[in-house]
Order: sequence, then C-alpha cells, then structure tokens
Amino acid sequence: MRINRITRRVPVLAYLRAGGAFRLLQFAIVTAGLIAIAINTMPQQPESRLALLNVVLWGCLAFFIAEWVSVIVRVNSAGRLADYLKSGVWIIDALAVLPVPVALAFGAPKTGAWLLGVLWLLKLASVSPGIARLGRVIRVEAKPLLSVLVIFLMVLFFAAAALNQVEREAQPDTFGSLPSALWWAVVTLTTTGYGDAVPVTALGRIVGGMVMICGLGVFGLLTGILATGFVEDGRRHNFVQNWDLVKGVPFFRSLDPAGIIEISRMLRRLELPENTMVVHRGRQGDCMYFVASGEVEVEVEPDPIRLGPGAFFGEMALLGGGKRNADVTTTLPTTLLVLDLADFRTFTAHHPELAVEIEAQARKRDKSATGGGHHQ
Amino acid sequence: MRINRITRRVPVLAYLRAGGAFRLLQFAIVTAGLIAIAINTMPQQPESRLALLNVVLWGCLAFFIAEWVSVIVRVNSAGRLADYLKSGVWIIDALAVLPVPVALAFGAPKTGAWLLGVLWLLKLASVSPGIARLGRVIRVEAKPLLSVLVIFLMVLFFAAAALNQVEREAQPDTFGSLPSALWWAVVTLTTTGYGDAVPVTALGRIVGGMVMICGLGVFGLLTGILATGFVEDGRRHNFVQNWDLVKGVPFFRSLDPAGIIEISRMLRRLELPENTMVVHRGRQGDCMYFVASGEVEVEVEPDPIRLGPGAFFGEMALLGGGKRNADVTTTLPTTLLVLDLADFRTFTAHHPELAVEIEAQARKRDKSATGGGHHQ
Amino acid sequence: MRINRITRRVPVLAYLRAGGAFRLLQFAIVTAGLIAIAINTMPQQPESRLALLNVVLWGCLAFFIAEWVSVIVRVNSAGRLADYLKSGVWIIDALAVLPVPVALAFGAPKTGAWLLGVLWLLKLASVSPGIARLGRVIRVEAKPLLSVLVIFLMVLFFAAAALNQVEREAQPDTFGSLPSALWWAVVTLTTTGYGDAVPVTALGRIVGGMVMICGLGVFGLLTGILATGFVEDGRRHNFVQNWDLVKGVPFFRSLDPAGIIEISRMLRRLELPENTMVVHRGRQGDCMYFVASGEVEVEVEPDPIRLGPGAFFGEMALLGGGKRNADVTTTLPTTLLVLDLADFRTFTAHHPELAVEIEAQARKRDKSATGGGHHQ
Amino acid sequence: MRINRITRRVPVLAYLRAGGAFRLLQFAIVTAGLIAIAINTMPQQPESRLALLNVVLWGCLAFFIAEWVSVIVRVNSAGRLADYLKSGVWIIDALAVLPVPVALAFGAPKTGAWLLGVLWLLKLASVSPGIARLGRVIRVEAKPLLSVLVIFLMVLFFAAAALNQVEREAQPDTFGSLPSALWWAVVTLTTTGYGDAVPVTALGRIVGGMVMICGLGVFGLLTGILATGFVEDGRRHNFVQNWDLVKGVPFFRSLDPAGIIEISRMLRRLELPENTMVVHRGRQGDCMYFVASGEVEVEVEPDPIRLGPGAFFGEMALLGGGKRNADVTTTLPTTLLVLDLADFRTFTAHHPELAVEIEAQARKRDKSATGGGHHQ
Repeated sequence: MRINRITRRVPVLAYLRAGGAFRLLQFAIVTAGLIAIAINTMPQQPESRLALLNVVLWGCLAFFIAEWVSVIVRVNSAGRLADYLKSGVWIIDALAVLPVPVALAFGAPKTGAWLLGVLWLLKLASVSPGIARLGRVIRVEAKPLLSVLVIFLMVLFFAAAALNQVEREAQPDTFGSLPSALWWAVVTLTTTGYGDAVPVTALGRIVGGMVMICGLGVFGLLTGILATGFVEDGRRHNFVQNWDLVKGVPFFRSLDPAGIIEISRMLRRLELPENTMVVHRGRQGDCMYFVASGEVEVEVEPDPIRLGPGAFFGEMALLGGGKRNADVTTTLPTTLLVLDLADFRTFTAHHPELAVEIEAQARKRDKSATGGGHHQ
Repeated sequence: MRINRITRRVPVLAYLRAGGAFRLLQFAIVTAGLIAIAINTMPQQPESRLALLNVVLWGCLAFFIAEWVSVIVRVNSAGRLADYLKSGVWIIDALAVLPVPVALAFGAPKTGAWLLGVLWLLKLASVSPGIARLGRVIRVEAKPLLSVLVIFLMVLFFAAAALNQVEREAQPDTFGSLPSALWWAVVTLTTTGYGDAVPVTALGRIVGGMVMICGLGVFGLLTGILATGFVEDGRRHNFVQNWDLVKGVPFFRSLDPAGIIEISRMLRRLELPENTMVVHRGRQGDCMYFVASGEVEVEVEPDPIRLGPGAFFGEMALLGGGKRNADVTTTLPTTLLVLDLADFRTFTAHHPELAVEIEAQARKRDKSATGGGHHQ
Repeated sequence: MRINRITRRVPVLAYLRAGGAFRLLQFAIVTAGLIAIAINTMPQQPESRLALLNVVLWGCLAFFIAEWVSVIVRVNSAGRLADYLKSGVWIIDALAVLPVPVALAFGAPKTGAWLLGVLWLLKLASVSPGIARLGRVIRVEAKPLLSVLVIFLMVLFFAAAALNQVEREAQPDTFGSLPSALWWAVVTLTTTGYGDAVPVTALGRIVGGMVMICGLGVFGLLTGILATGFVEDGRRHNFVQNWDLVKGVPFFRSLDPAGIIEISRMLRRLELPENTMVVHRGRQGDCMYFVASGEVEVEVEPDPIRLGPGAFFGEMALLGGGKRNADVTTTLPTTLLVLDLADFRTFTAHHPELAVEIEAQARKRDKSATGGGHHQ
Repeated sequence: MRINRITRRVPVLAYLRAGGAFRLLQFAIVTAGLIAIAINTMPQQPESRLALLNVVLWGCLAFFIAEWVSVIVRVNSAGRLADYLKSGVWIIDALAVLPVPVALAFGAPKTGAWLLGVLWLLKLASVSPGIARLGRVIRVEAKPLLSVLVIFLMVLFFAAAALNQVEREAQPDTFGSLPSALWWAVVTLTTTGYGDAVPVTALGRIVGGMVMICGLGVFGLLTGILATGFVEDGRRHNFVQNWDLVKGVPFFRSLDPAGIIEISRMLRRLELPENTMVVHRGRQGDCMYFVASGEVEVEVEPDPIRLGPGAFFGEMALLGGGKRNADVTTTLPTTLLVLDLADFRTFTAHHPELAVEIEAQARKRDKSATGGGHHQ
C-alpha cells in the first residue's frame, strides 16, 4: 500500500504497473541492458567490471530470447501462428532479439555486436501505443508532411548552392563543395547551429540569416501538422474506446445516441492496477467516476461498500462542498471513466433527468452515511 | 494612485499586487536572496561586500523561517495541523527552508551551503497556479508524453549507436564510447548544438542530419501535447470558476442551464486590488464588466456611484460610440467578469431578453447622466 | 497598372500600398536610415562615403522630426492635443525621434548617438496592428505566461546550481560561479547552445541533457500559450470588425442575429488600394466577394459595370465551372469581404433563401452577359 | 503485387505511385541529378567518375528540356498557349530548365553552371500541392506574419545596438560594428547559436539571455500563425473537394444540405493506384470506405465482387467484431472516401435512416457470404 501511494504519484510507474508486473520487469531489464551496453563501449574497464557486464548482457539476451520463445509457443498453441507471421509483429520481435546473437555468431567484434542491443528498446515500443499512433498520424498527414519536406529540401539545396558560391573562396574547406555546404545548411535550417561551419562574408551571412528564419517557418509548419494530427488522432481513438465503455454503463442507458456521443467525448479513461487509492478523503475533488470494469471499495463506516461495473462515485464532492468524504481504493485492476467538473456542469445542464438521478443517489448515500460514516 | 497607474500596466506587478503586499514582499526577498547567492559564489569579493552579502543571506533565511513558523502556528491553532502534514505541502515548505541551515549545521563549505538557497524559488512556485496546472496536464497527458519519450529514447540510442560505429575511428575522443555518443545525440536531437561533438564523416553527417530532422519532429509532438493540454486545462478550470461566479450574479439568474454554460465559457476573470482604475474615460472600450465580488466606483458628476456584486458597467461603450464616458476605479479588492465585444455580440444574439435589459439600463444611466455627468 | 500587378503578388508591398503612398515612403526611409546607421558603425570608411552617410542620416532625422511636428500641428488644430498627450502615443513618437538629436546635443560620440536611430523602427511598430495585439495577448494570458516564467526560472536556477557544484572543479572558469553557470543554463534551456560553456563530467552531462529536454517542454508551453492567445485574439478582433461591416451590407439584412454572427465568423477582410485587380478572367476562382466600402469595376462587354458598397461579385465561379469570366479591378481604395468556397457551401446550406437570391443574381448577370460579354 | 505491398506501406512511394509512373521517373531523375551535381562540386575526382557525372548531368538536362518541349507542344496543340503564358507556370518551368544551358553557353565555369541544376527541385514543387497551400496561407495570414516580422526586426536591431555598445570594447572584432552585432542577434534570436559570436560581459549576457527568451516567443508566435493557417487551409480545401465527391455518391443523396456538410467534414480522401490492397482480411478494421471513383474488387468466394463509384465497403468491421473478413484490392486508379469509426458513430447517431441502410446492406452481404465466403 505504501508503494502504491508512491507509484500512484509517478505517472511512469503507474503506467508500468497498469501493465502488470511483467511490463515492469521488462522495463527494468531493458534499462539494465542499455546501461550495460553503454558502459561496455567505454575503454579501459577493470577486469572485474567486465565480468559483471558480461553477466548482465547475457542475462538480458537470455530473457528476451526466452520471452520471444514463450510468445511463439503461446501463439502456436492457440493456432494463430500464421496470423502472427502475417501481421508483421514478428519482424519487430526478431529485430529486437536476433541481431546480437547473429553478430556474435558471425564473429563481429564483441563491443560492436553488443551495441546492437540498443534494438532492445523496440520492446518498449511494442508496448507503447504512441508508436502506432505516430504511424497513423504520418499516414493520414502524409501529403502535408511531404509538402513540408519538399519545402525543406528546396531551402536546403538553394541555400547550400548559394553559400557554396559565396563562401567558397573565403573558406574552401567548409563550403568548397556542395555536400559540405549542405551539411552547413541542414545544421542551420534545423537551428541546431554547431558552429563548425559559419559564413563569414557579408552576403553569406545575409543568406544564412534568411535560412534561419526559414528554419523557424519549417519548424512551425512541422509542429502544426504533427501536433494537430497527434492530438486529433488521440481524440478520435479516445472517443471510440469511451463509446464502447459507455454502452456498458447502465446509468447511461437512457441516453439517446447524440447524448452517448456527447458523454463519450467528455470522459477520460483511467486504467488502474488493484489496491490503488483513487479518491482521498478530505482532498479537494473536481471530478466524478464511473466504473467501467473492475471494482472499487468505498471505505465508509461501519462496513466498506464495494462498487462494481456500472456504478459511479465521487459525485458528492461535485454537488456539495468540494471535499471528498471517503477514501476509495481499487480491489481489482479497474477501468474508470472520469468526468471532470467542467464537463459535469455541461452534461447535467443538457440532461437534467440524469442530474436528478445522480442527486437522488447522492442524497441516499448521504442519508445512509449519517447513520455511521461518510463516503466520498 | 500614481503607483497604481504604473503597476496596472505591468502585468507582473499587477499580479503580485493582487496577492497583496505580502506576496510582493516575498517576491522581493526571493529576488534579493537569489542575487546575493549568485554574487556569493563569485571569487575574490572585497571584505565589505562579503559582510553585506552575509546580512542579506541571513536576513532572507530568517524571513523564510519566520514565515514557515507563522504558517505552522496558524495551521495548528486552526486545528488543521494533521491536514497540513497529510497534504504534502509541508514537504515543499521544508524543502525551501531547511536545506541551507542543515547544510551549514553539518559544516558544509559556506558557499555551497548557501547555494541551496536557490530552493527559495519554491516559495514562488507555491503561489503560482501554473505549477499545479502543469502537474495536472502531465498526469492527464501521461500516455502521449510517455510515447514521445519512448520515441525520443529510441532515436537517441539508435543515433548514438550509429555514430559511435561510424565516427569512432575519426574521432575516438568524442564518439569512441556510447555515453559520449549519447551526449552528442541529446545535444543534437534537442537542436541545442553546442558544437563540442560534430560528425565529420559523410555517413555520420547524413545520420546527423536525420537526427536533427527527427528532433524537429519530437519537438513538434511535445509542443502539440503540452500546448493543447495546458490550454485545455486552463479552459476547463476557467469555466468551473466562472460558473460558480455567474451563479452569484443576479443579472444571469433568468438564464437556463445551457445559457449559464455559454456565458461561463465566454467570460474572463480579472482580479484587481483596491484603488485600481478599470476603465479610463475617453479610451476605446471593447468589453463590459460584471462585478462578481468587491466594489467599484464610477466617477460621474455630481456624485460618484458605487457598484457592488451583481452590477455591471462598461456596456455603453459597446452599445454606443465605443468610447468610455467615465473613469471606473475599484474601492476594494475586486473580482470582475469581463465580456469581450465579440462575445457580447454573440451572447446578445442568443439571449435577446438580456440584451433588452442591458440596453434599458444603459438608457437609464444615460438619461440620469444628461442631468449632471456621464458614466462609462 | 503594371506595378499594381507586381505589388499585388507581394504581400508586403500590397500591405504597404493599402496604407497609401505615405506609409510606403516611411518604410523606405526607415530602411535607408537603418542601413546608413549600420554602415556608419563600420570602421575605416572612405571620406566620400562618410559624407553620403551623413546626408542620409540627417535626411532621415529631418523627415521624422518634420513628420512629428506635422502630427502635433494637426492634432492641435483639431483641438485634441490633450487626448494625444493622455493616450501615451506621444511617448512612442518622442522615443523614435528625440534620442538622436538629444545625444548629439549632449556631445555623445557620433557613431553611438546615431545608433539610437534604431529606435526609428518604432515608426513601423506604430503602424503595425500586431504590436497592439501582442500586448493584449500578454495581458490576457498574463497568468499562464507568469507560470511558465516561474517554471523557466526554477529550472534555470536549479540547473545552474547543480552544474556549478558538479563542474566547478573541472572547469573553474566557465562554471566556477553561479552567474557563469546561469549563463550556461539560459543558453542551454533556450536550446541556443553556443558551445562556449559545455559540461564535461558525466553527471554534468546528465543534468545538461535533462535541462535540454526541459527546454523543449518550456518551449512547448510558451508556444502553446502565445500561439493560442494570438490566434484567438485575431479571431475575436476579426469577428467584431466583420460584424460591423456585415451590418452595412444590404444583402445580409434579412439574416437573424445568429445568421449575422455565423457569416461574420466566416468572412475575411481584404483591404485594397485603388487600381488593383481582384479577379482575373480565366483563373480558377474559389471565393466570392462582398463590397463593404469603395468600388470595383467589372470589365464586361460592351460597357464595364461598377459595383459599390453592398454589391457582391465572383459568385458565378462558385456556382458554375470554377473559372472567373471577367476581370474585376478596384477604382477606389476598397474593403472587400471574402467568402471562401468551403464557407459558401456551409452558409448556403444553412440559409437557402440567400442561396436562391445569389443564384437569381448570377442568372440575371449571365443572361445579360450573353448579349455582349461575360462577367466573373 | 509484391511491390505494391511494399510501396503501400511507404507513404512517399504510395504518393508518387498515385501520380503514375511518370512522376516516379521524374522524382528519380531529380534525385540522380542532385546527387551528380553534389559530387561534381567535390575536388579531385578521378577521370572515370567525371565522365560518368557528365553523362548523368547531360542526361538529366536533356530529360527536362524534352519534358518542357513536350508540355509546350501539348499546350499549343490544345490551343491554350496564351493561357499557359499568362498563368505564370511557364516562369517556373523555364527557371527549372534554362539556367544551366544559358550559363554554359555564356561560358560560366562548368561546376558553377551545373550548380544551377539545384533549380530542378522546382519540378518537385510544381507537383506538390503544399507549395500552393503555403502560398495561400502566407497571403491569408499576411498581416499577423508581418506583425511578427516587425517584432522580430525590432528585437533584432535593439539587441544588436545594445550589444554593439556593451561588447564593443571587449570584442571589437565580433561586436565592433552594427552589421557584426546583427549577425550575432539573428543567430541568437533564432536560437541557432553557432557560438562564433558570444557576449562575455555581464551586461551583454543579460541582454543575450533576454534575446533568447524573446526568440522563444517569436518562435511561438510564428509557429502558432503558420500552424493554424496551414491546418485551417487544409481543412477548408479538404471540405470543398469532399463536398464535390459526396454529391456524386448515391448513398448520400437522401441527406439534406446540413447533412452533406457534416459528412464532407468527416471524410478523408484516399487516392490509390491500381492493384493496391485497401483492406486485409483478418486485420483490425476501424474505418469504412465509399468509392468516389475507380473500382475495387472484394475477394469473396466463390467469385470476387467488383464495386464501382457510389458503393461502400468495410462497414461490417464497424458493426461487428472489428475484424475485416475479406481482402479488398483496387483494380483501377481509385479515389476512396474514408469514414473513421469515431465519425461513423457520430454520423449514424445523427442520421439513423442511413445507419439502417448500412446495416441492411451488411446483413445482406453477410447472408450471401454464409453461402460461400465472407467479405470485409
């Protein structure tokens, strides 16, 4: 419980825990592996540390191989090996696991071979929904992204050609050929600015200044497209998942389709592992919760109450003084739908009949609470 | 009044004054303390300046300790010490105050010990609503932020591993080990570009260029997520606070729930200290004001009028020629709700009955003004 | 006309011309003055060039003084000198004009005195609506901007203190004191990365990497707040100006308030000088125009038609094949309201009665055109 | 088919293929030409490579000349030469083709003459819709962009003048004249930060830090304006194109104008070459498709079905278990309208009669499928 309290506040850990102990272990092993690979490339290590590194590296490799074999066995016994092979997921799994042993087997230098272990990061990618989302965004926004790329390339080549002509005589080493000038152009256009190639002539600097301003513009366009696409895709995805969950909550059954769409847009999903405190008694509360799956325990006197799928809680802080009046903890891995105060206000204004229902429920709870304890 | 006129134009000062004299003092002391700490670390100070620095530093420390003690005493006498300890705010308070005396007590070198005084900045953080908002945004957007982090790490490690292989022979010092290459990668991927590590081989530069472009992309994604989240959270929070205030303004009492939601979305809160001029006679006016709490004085002939909570003013500039026709000044710390001209147009189009009421009020004011003076 | 064709395509020139010849002249003189000031600071100029520079500089100064005097005379003769003095505009005017002669009079070195001529740029600012808008945005978004500033300062000071401790021994010159470390921190946090101060220890580099990532975050927040505020303010301002113009167009008179609000949001203002071609016969057309003020000439056979305020044109390309079928040129400085095809579709769907009217007008024009010529 | 599978996954290739083989060829030739130009500028090439380079360069030039001649001949034979000359497209075409032969004819140094071949990139620009879009955005957002430019220039000049005064004595070479200081200012304000000019005095660094923070602000404004404008223009353009396509789909004929506008906003266009697989049996499906033009083949047993313009497919994954139950491949170059699951939910809620129709169609297909095969 103590650990829960800590992990609950650190999003990374909460996220990992939501995936269960296995994901946490995988994350730890990838981290350990990467650190070992990094140290392994440093020169003049003492003998004893090299031995330890070897243990860690081989251990990580063994873990990933074992994991992959177990995946294949499980898939195969479910008769879905063909699907697995067709889906392309196996390519990522293989890319994460095979390169190191293959390189070692073919006699590559040891340090270089283990360096391929950075591909273990793909293990994290496969659990991250963001990579898939980024892929979708790039596919949907392919046209504008390509346009920005063409603009980027045009500025790049025109600037490089201009600087090559202008600065060639003053700095033959850094601007003497188009490839060198292109290196300067890309470093400048992305506003990285290493300073290894810098125009010194007046004309070169004027062109350079314009390239930097173009860089800001390209940056702005790219940001706009990626940001909008990413946010938009998230909203869409969120809506579809919420819609499915809302359909299963009895409380919303009286809503017409437009109402279901409205509430699906408002809700935010929260996936929690078991034994996580959702609501703290005495804290300020600015949202209410619907249980989509799993179970929570409301710690009221004399006996705690358990709420299962379809129930809601936390509404009393929105209707009353704003303070939570009971602790609420998950007892199972639970998916909650969160309705923020702002959206609660809007939703109850549009659907007064549901507002009445929530208030009735709150009054009932409050009355029963007067006899012994208070809840959220 | 003269000072008010000046501070009113400088948002920072107006903001500080809204929190009263104490916040202003706190801000000044943090600033003085930080400057003293900075000077304190510089070598070869004259004796006299060191003495002065000591006075300032010990003075700041004494102030923060005194403040903390007063907070604890106040909390304790209100019987809420347990709440204070449970809320975690005490951690921040302790972190701001204790490190310096503890370090001095344990005999750390004096300059280093006082350096911990940079934690006094936390005092500003605790008064800034933005830190809490940033926290909420990070919690709500945890998943996409984690995805971007994973993408960031993947690009980072893959680029570092590639450059380590490609540039190792040309520049063993800067790219010889994975950690050094990672340093290059993070400097490049964030487009910082110190220039202390720069690829020189053709292949290394091609990879480098791609890393920079990825940097733009990562930047774009991060900007999109943080910006959208921050703006969205502000909108939500604003709406909830306005909703509570609008409920208390009699003028809006006739509105149905949907109307209250609409106007709550349109309004902007403005918290002002006493004796601040809100409206200047003769200036262009593009908004009207509702008094949510506090009081304002409209300077009309023969006698100024005072308007309390629930009243509105500034509507005549929107209905008539666009010029304010009276000065309006706060007499108490006042919360105003601002309705911009654009939203005024929309709102009156949707609620003609309120438009009629505003116009009636304006006509009445104008008539009474003809007899002696004009007001806004 | 030839020049019109060219300037029409270059937004900067079109923008300047919309303000008339005077603004163009002012822009040219500011440009010439700045170039002269810049050259003036370069060492070892030939005598002849110095003489020329002197002529240009004194000429610019004389122009700005003459302009200011004429403004004051004009304002005074209109009896509004008090207003002018109260509005604060005179401060900017004085700041642009006075510093150079004052500095020269007080015997400041000549080059340095003329350097104050960079303040002539304020002349451009006073004509640019964007500065006022930026001011409004900063005022409205003061709270979130302050929050980001506090976050920025905290990262800055904490990073500088950490690096000061970590790198002090390795690089006493660049990280030995907190001010030097702060310089590193600000260069890094803004992702500028000069490379004059670079951490070399492992711990310093880890902190540095985190500072860079924080820099991306701060960047993202700032971009989000400023961008949203700027765009939002533009939309508001645009809406209010359009609303006023739409009220004056007879065609929209039949609309209810909600309809006026809808169309005011859709339209885009276009201010054109006289003799500017708006529509080119044979070009693809994707918008229609309403004349808000001024006059345009439709070049149809046998006689061109003139359309004044309240008329519309360009609708036939939207209804028919998409090609413009007449040239349209302004005969006076004209304000047009542009309705894009996308919004035209939406608007006519919501207001079928106006769609009918537009089609009737188009049919009438087409018929009359069959007898002699075609128009847009 | 195998190649199709690969190209379908790489957006760049899919995009190129959509334009047919010619665009692919053009892209390849531009790429080859640019590489040849880049290599051509490098010193000390072996004789044999120079000969090869010459072949490639002359080949590219010949291709572009031949292409241009063919365009002119085609345009002329269609009697539209006057239109072509008037439209200004010929300028771009000429700019891409003529500079190299003209420079060679006038006896310019060979390497420099061929460098003008970077203008061949304009060939890509003319096929990219993004350049036109960027042009529109810059025109529409001219005013705010100009405002940002003025702010940018003011910060630039004021910072340069300040640093020139402050750092002149410490670093006469880098800050001694205004032009040098301007170079520092532009490098800093764009956060490029080469590090070739760095303030060293305390005052200079304070000004420098403020310039960097202004740089973030300018960046934010620029990003906001460009990003919003670009995204907004894309939405508009998309809507208009979709509206035209939706009008041609019989299924939507029963919709009222508001419904057509709604669905036009929701759909996403997808242009595919022939023989491209749209839907993979067994994959997760989260959208349905309407055929706007072209033809697709649904691979069901016993005989595949062909669907032409106006038909829809993919709806069963949305109504049922989420899996595609047939492969669907294009047989002709096809334009599809994609309706995402999120929008499908919203749309069917608003238009229950169309939902019924889709379900009826799906039931019919499912029934016929039970007799032999399944489709999507």
